[in-house]
Amino acid sequence: MNFRHVARILAGFVAFFSVVQLVPLALALREESAEAVSSQQGFFAGIVTGAAVAAVLFALGRRARGELFRRETLLIAGVAWLAAGVIGAVPFFGSGLLRDPADALFESVSGLTTCGGTVLGCAGNPAPEATPPSLLLWRAMLQWLGGIGIVLAFVALMPSMGRAGKNLLMAESVGVSSEGYQPRIRTRAHGIALVYVGLTALCAVALVFFGGMSWFDAICHAFTCLATGGFSTRTNVALFDSLGVEIVLTTFMFIGGCSFTVMAGVARDGWTGLRGMLRSGEFRIYTLFTAGAILLVGIDLMRRGAGLGAALRESSFNVVSMLSCCGYATADFHVWPPLSLIVIVTCSMVGGCSGSAAGGLKQVRLLVCLKLLGHTVRRFVQPNLVERIKLDEEVLQASTLSTVLSVVLLWMLTILLGSMVLALDQRLSFVGCISASASMLGGCGPALAAVHPDMLLQPLPTLGVGVDVVGPNIGPFGGYGDLSNLSKLAMCLQMVLGRLELLPILALFAPRFWQR
Amino acid sequence: MNFRHVARILAGFVAFFSVVQLVPLALALREESAEAVSSQQGFFAGIVTGAAVAAVLFALGRRARGELFRRETLLIAGVAWLAAGVIGAVPFFGSGLLRDPADALFESVSGLTTCGGTVLGCAGNPAPEATPPSLLLWRAMLQWLGGIGIVLAFVALMPSMGRAGKNLLMAESVGVSSEGYQPRIRTRAHGIALVYVGLTALCAVALVFFGGMSWFDAICHAFTCLATGGFSTRTNVALFDSLGVEIVLTTFMFIGGCSFTVMAGVARDGWTGLRGMLRSGEFRIYTLFTAGAILLVGIDLMRRGAGLGAALRESSFNVVSMLSCCGYATADFHVWPPLSLIVIVTCSMVGGCSGSAAGGLKQVRLLVCLKLLGHTVRRFVQPNLVERIKLDEEVLQASTLSTVLSVVLLWMLTILLGSMVLALDQRLSFVGCISASASMLGGCGPALAAVHPDMLLQPLPTLGVGVDVVGPNIGPFGGYGDLSNLSKLAMCLQMVLGRLELLPILALFAPRFWQR
Repeated sequence: MNFRHVARILAGFVAFFSVVQLVPLALALREESAEAVSSQQGFFAGIVTGAAVAAVLFALGRRARGELFRRETLLIAGVAWLAAGVIGAVPFFGSGLLRDPADALFESVSGLTTCGGTVLGCAGNPAPEATPPSLLLWRAMLQWLGGIGIVLAFVALMPSMGRAGKNLLMAESVGVSSEGYQPRIRTRAHGIALVYVGLTALCAVALVFFGGMSWFDAICHAFTCLATGGFSTRTNVALFDSLGVEIVLTTFMFIGGCSFTVMAGVARDGWTGLRGMLRSGEFRIYTLFTAGAILLVGIDLMRRGAGLGAALRESSFNVVSMLSCCGYATADFHVWPPLSLIVIVTCSMVGGCSGSAAGGLKQVRLLVCLKLLGHTVRRFVQPNLVERIKLDEEVLQASTLSTVLSVVLLWMLTILLGSMVLALDQRLSFVGCISASASMLGGCGPALAAVHPDMLLQPLPTLGVGVDVVGPNIGPFGGYGDLSNLSKLAMCLQMVLGRLELLPILALFAPRFWQR
Repeated sequence: MNFRHVARILAGFVAFFSVVQLVPLALALREESAEAVSSQQGFFAGIVTGAAVAAVLFALGRRARGELFRRETLLIAGVAWLAAGVIGAVPFFGSGLLRDPADALFESVSGLTTCGGTVLGCAGNPAPEATPPSLLLWRAMLQWLGGIGIVLAFVALMPSMGRAGKNLLMAESVGVSSEGYQPRIRTRAHGIALVYVGLTALCAVALVFFGGMSWFDAICHAFTCLATGGFSTRTNVALFDSLGVEIVLTTFMFIGGCSFTVMAGVARDGWTGLRGMLRSGEFRIYTLFTAGAILLVGIDLMRRGAGLGAALRESSFNVVSMLSCCGYATADFHVWPPLSLIVIVTCSMVGGCSGSAAGGLKQVRLLVCLKLLGHTVRRFVQPNLVERIKLDEEVLQASTLSTVLSVVLLWMLTILLGSMVLALDQRLSFVGCISASASMLGGCGPALAAVHPDMLLQPLPTLGVGVDVVGPNIGPFGGYGDLSNLSKLAMCLQMVLGRLELLPILALFAPRFWQR
């Protein structure tokens, strides 16, 4: 292991992560310091910490020689997420906004991984409405940087890194499927970043003009929407009380769940690229899945007495939010009928397309699994059947299939183990533990708290109105502040595991990773 | 498709299933007919129906020629379960015990598949305590026949069938893994049946002498215990109020979850066989899993205030019952703390060993998955790693691995789709739908109803005492009678799917099954 080289790369990364804090600092300098919360102090602390760590790493990596190989890049990716999580937390803690370091770390990791679970508004922490704008901007920026993949952002902005940059991308999920399914895209970091920036700008403009948002709110939401992160500047998005906002956000959450690598291809190739995108198996199943889920939930809500328009509005926003693993909510879906709950929980586990900012297992894995299942049944009928499984005209190798299936199973196993750790906190319910674990791994955000079952038989509440829960409210209108510190740390680990799609992090724990 | 031959085999099978009803009829003849329920009438109806169907099938199959191939055997297995389910239901309906045909079918299929979910004691049906003994015996016999695999029982008793018998076994899961992992065992139907009968007798004797049960109760429980079925002659097993009963049942439920093919080998080879059994990967992981689950649940119950002895008693019985997918219960685990619930639900999904009467996905699949996951992580670290995955010294082929993984994924998918059908009944909760679907597919029995979350914070109830639930009580002390008929039919399908481990039934729905 070439530790010097690892340190040198990380030094640059940490320095970058220190410099970007100048943006919210500029905003903070205009804010008046309140008694308890000083955002300026927070960002000063963040920048100084980042600079100090970068300096130490730079000193360690001064005499770096040799190349970066697979192991080094995996280590860099793992440590980079850890470092970014810690440095991103400093402003929250240093400003006095969050007094518990575990809360600050949770908020920062939840931002970077675009999970979107928050500790604001619970456990005595201020609600988003009472948080200084500069810190709200920092939350949104964390998600935006995390959405494109902090490493990809770094590489795209530092083209001088050359080959090392390419290798680094390998461990990221945005733009690179770990199955080696689209090898050419490693070289397209720039195109991806441009598309990402362009769509974000478009979203912000649309939010102002169609939704009537302020520019500040619009920019924050554009950041967290395209990143499918889910941090909002209000406790829930329904509080903006604007159909325009909901339509714009729904559209851009859907786009945020599409593959940015494919969209970069569309931007480059025009109509040819668009035709390719519309014909790709993953985009098709993603669209079908979205439409089917909206329809099912809509009909189910109408069976509980919602009107057609209201059901469609509630269904489309929340389904797309959960499917793209964004995590905005306009409805407290605790009291939705069981079918709707099953559908949105399934959505949050499947997630968006590979190469997107969305979380979850990704649609391509669902597609591959479905193809394999059909194949297995056909081969059971005809044991000597010879058949190759194809994805977009490419034959899938046995090793690729086995990796896809392994990741799906590992995902389930990680949800199970994570829920067992959360269950040590006996205030959570059975479904609370499992849904929180799945939500963290999928980078979704909301989970399901325990509600009085009598409420399931009452009329649905209006948009934006929360329901009473028992124990910590980890639902769409709640947060994770009330959980134990052990739970918060376990959830941070799960968010990073899910963001990197398990294997790159698990590899760090394999004994043979450190051998030789 | 050689339909004539299929009809001839089925004729014999249905005739056998008609004849076995003479046993409970003999008991029924001694019972006095109550006004509403006449068990004699029920069994007369069952025997006549069976005989008539057998006669028609025999007439259809009179001129059968040619051999049985794979497709014919699959069709026979599928139709045999359907026929057995319907004929088994006739006594329940014909006697007037269950007035709804859907209830009667559910009870019969739940018996045959050794699921153990019941409709007695709910929806206006009499409780087991108020059911005539002959019908209780029939319930237990259904499970006992289903446990060994109705087809295996049929073959073992009709040795004249020769090759056809061997082919029929292929589609059954008891004694034959669908992965072709132990091909020799097809010839061992007799040994398996002998071991099964012997262990059942031993269990009945032990229940009388150590548990103080009456011979009738002991025989019924021995039938349903070795079959890991779970039908009891009382509403719950804790009502016998006997530690002896619980210890004997726990022991034999554990044995019922072991591979009968392996145990038949032990009976034949003595110590050599036993050493082989103790060394096999599947038995080891099954034992470890059992011990680990008992320990976890025990500690978790102690954290909620239970004493060491009480926690161990409650934990061991209910964990082994759920792990073997038997479904007896002494505790209404609705109010168990979340970790315990996660553990027992996991237990019920994993199930016992392959080749056992237990349900679930089977321990061997868990073992294969874990081996593959380790392999995937190692190969992620070293992409050019060459490594073969072995199970008990045998190298697993890629196609075997792919089938194992496919079955696991199909299992999850079937649980999901089943829960969506159950969710059409809006009285069930989110967790109720999913747990009932998983319980039916795994052949377990109990599911989780909705309880007031306040109860989760109160002290644990004593053994055998139920808790109040909201909506239909589908928990360990409840039943499925209150669900809609659509739900009951869907659950019947799921039980059969789970019992045959999906592929043999799904194959019948594949278009190419019927081609040529």
